[in-house]
Amino acid sequence: MNKLTNNNDLEILKTDISMVDGENGRLVYRGFLATELAKNYSFEEVAYLLWYGELPDKEKLAHFTEKLALQREIPLFIKRIIDIIPNEVNMMSVLRIALSALGESNYNWPFNLDMAISITAKIPTIIAYRYRQLQNKEPIEPDLSLSHTVNYLYMLKGSQPKDFEIKALETYLILTQEHGMNPSTFAGRIVASTRSDLISAVTAAISALKGPLHGGAPSKVTEMLEEIGTKENAETWLRNAIERGDRLMGFGHRIYKTKDPRSVVLGQIVSEFSKDTPWFDLATYVEETAIRLLKEYKPNLKIYTNVEFYAAAVMKAINFEKLLYTPTFAVSRVVGWCAHFIDAMDKRLIYPSTIYTGRLPIS
Amino acid sequence: MNKLTNNNDLEILKTDISMVDGENGRLVYRGFLATELAKNYSFEEVAYLLWYGELPDKEKLAHFTEKLALQREIPLFIKRIIDIIPNEVNMMSVLRIALSALGESNYNWPFNLDMAISITAKIPTIIAYRYRQLQNKEPIEPDLSLSHTVNYLYMLKGSQPKDFEIKALETYLILTQEHGMNPSTFAGRIVASTRSDLISAVTAAISALKGPLHGGAPSKVTEMLEEIGTKENAETWLRNAIERGDRLMGFGHRIYKTKDPRSVVLGQIVSEFSKDTPWFDLATYVEETAIRLLKEYKPNLKIYTNVEFYAAAVMKAINFEKLLYTPTFAVSRVVGWCAHFIDAMDKRLIYPSTIYTGRLPIS
Repeated sequence: MNKLTNNNDLEILKTDISMVDGENGRLVYRGFLATELAKNYSFEEVAYLLWYGELPDKEKLAHFTEKLALQREIPLFIKRIIDIIPNEVNMMSVLRIALSALGESNYNWPFNLDMAISITAKIPTIIAYRYRQLQNKEPIEPDLSLSHTVNYLYMLKGSQPKDFEIKALETYLILTQEHGMNPSTFAGRIVASTRSDLISAVTAAISALKGPLHGGAPSKVTEMLEEIGTKENAETWLRNAIERGDRLMGFGHRIYKTKDPRSVVLGQIVSEFSKDTPWFDLATYVEETAIRLLKEYKPNLKIYTNVEFYAAAVMKAINFEKLLYTPTFAVSRVVGWCAHFIDAMDKRLIYPSTIYTGRLPIS
Repeated sequence: MNKLTNNNDLEILKTDISMVDGENGRLVYRGFLATELAKNYSFEEVAYLLWYGELPDKEKLAHFTEKLALQREIPLFIKRIIDIIPNEVNMMSVLRIALSALGESNYNWPFNLDMAISITAKIPTIIAYRYRQLQNKEPIEPDLSLSHTVNYLYMLKGSQPKDFEIKALETYLILTQEHGMNPSTFAGRIVASTRSDLISAVTAAISALKGPLHGGAPSKVTEMLEEIGTKENAETWLRNAIERGDRLMGFGHRIYKTKDPRSVVLGQIVSEFSKDTPWFDLATYVEETAIRLLKEYKPNLKIYTNVEFYAAAVMKAINFEKLLYTPTFAVSRVVGWCAHFIDAMDKRLIYPSTIYTGRLPIS
């Protein structure tokens, strides 16, 4: 008997959306290697695959791309709410508040893919609106003629992005769309299992993604690199951190016992365009040193660079500020969230039994 | 091996906060029967017990009560956000948005009980502010001299509540403070396990509580009773529902295989004060008929009246509108949520492995 889900754990954990093959370092989306998809397909094509179970033909893709673009606008009252939120509130909190404010009327159970399209389309608009506001710049309306990735960059920066920025960000956004029952997906799945609305489920997922042990990790990688500062400083800094028992951000993964396949592809992309920059030079040096020291201090553990390390490298390469890192993860992961929430509509309420370790009552 | 939590399910599910003893129909809070606590103690005393592990003495109680009261005020920008949310947005969504907007700056990991006190104190204020606004009435500021329960009623109604209303609501608010790893607590626990902030964890819990299979059930009970309308209509209506395969709201529980101990106490309270009202007469008749018919149609299942049925009866007896039912559940359950989130700070990230049932990649 599995206490955690009252005997139905196997049903809850079965999925044909993705396979996270930690032993062999493979991430599979609906039968395709995510790393191959990232090289050859667009954000829209891969989202279509995860949601509809197959890659779209030209006509289906055109229709889907248009549908997604048409849903980018956010209601005026959401903008007013964002305007009121104090500047010091974390960008992930702002995203959670603003998305939450979309309310439930169009997103009630049973869920459907039109709802998923609407939520996925609006997340970049919310982030960009807030980002521009924090910079005292005019917000930029979504451009319906642009792809999901290009439009996101355009709304943030106000100009046509460079080819490299598009390629790097799109690769990241494809590789991070889906990853099994990670904490944000699982938190949202529990909400969805109560037949709450889809906005509620995505709000719970955003709440979990915000955590430093989940989506909050890449900005901690950048903080670490900024603290280290120079190659000369790297070994001492890392030794001190390991000896203090600190967690090194960007290394190790709960599931992968090999190199994280996503980090390999992201590393290639970044090195292609940034290899001559001092920041990339420092990052690769820190990576090598950290892996060497982790082997020295923890010879029995197989610890590799994880996706967060190279996610940070991508974000840095495209000049994203740290406050955009985790929200940008939400831009892609919302695809996987919605795939799971919709897919599991026929599954039971998740309500595990606890094991009481406290005092018993006298009567 | 337990796939759901990567081998650590036992640690995750161990708790000394409460025991939900479904076989014997007992609910235990920190060694005390919840039903006894509800008869003899106040909301504040039981919250103190769940948070600090022991009942407070007079001095500790006075200090705690004052601390809780002093945290009731909500920031002005939260009121402005509530003002902007369109009227048709569900009250649970409003609570989620407004609570979410408290932001993370004072609620970051590691959590502490001062944060729990602040959140617990503010939830009634948010609900009452919105409720008055929907009625086009002036908001009522919290009265620091009143107890948690009395102040909530006062802020909603604008007058000193009747003794019966206080007793019925307080009994409900004590009996529903905590209930093991129910879906809202579990969703929040996952968020907390990523070291996201406490507001994020509570926001996820509210998102789950909203669902009709969880905290949304009591208002469905009232809807059912309103649809049935008369005793004459009851048997036909219930037979039709059972034969259609509909779930009868207010009957059956995932864990209790006996009468839900909470429903017994709530039933007593309501019958004491409402037994001569036509509504209570209808409710008890519907209960008897439903139990009789469920035995007839499903003789092998032990289905009893659950807490939602009598929660609805309490809400009706104290003249709460349906839109207040689930938010009022949040007023009490937030105590259990925070107890679990704080208690589990030393536990691991919850990240279950999935079982892939889809196609394998060609390469």
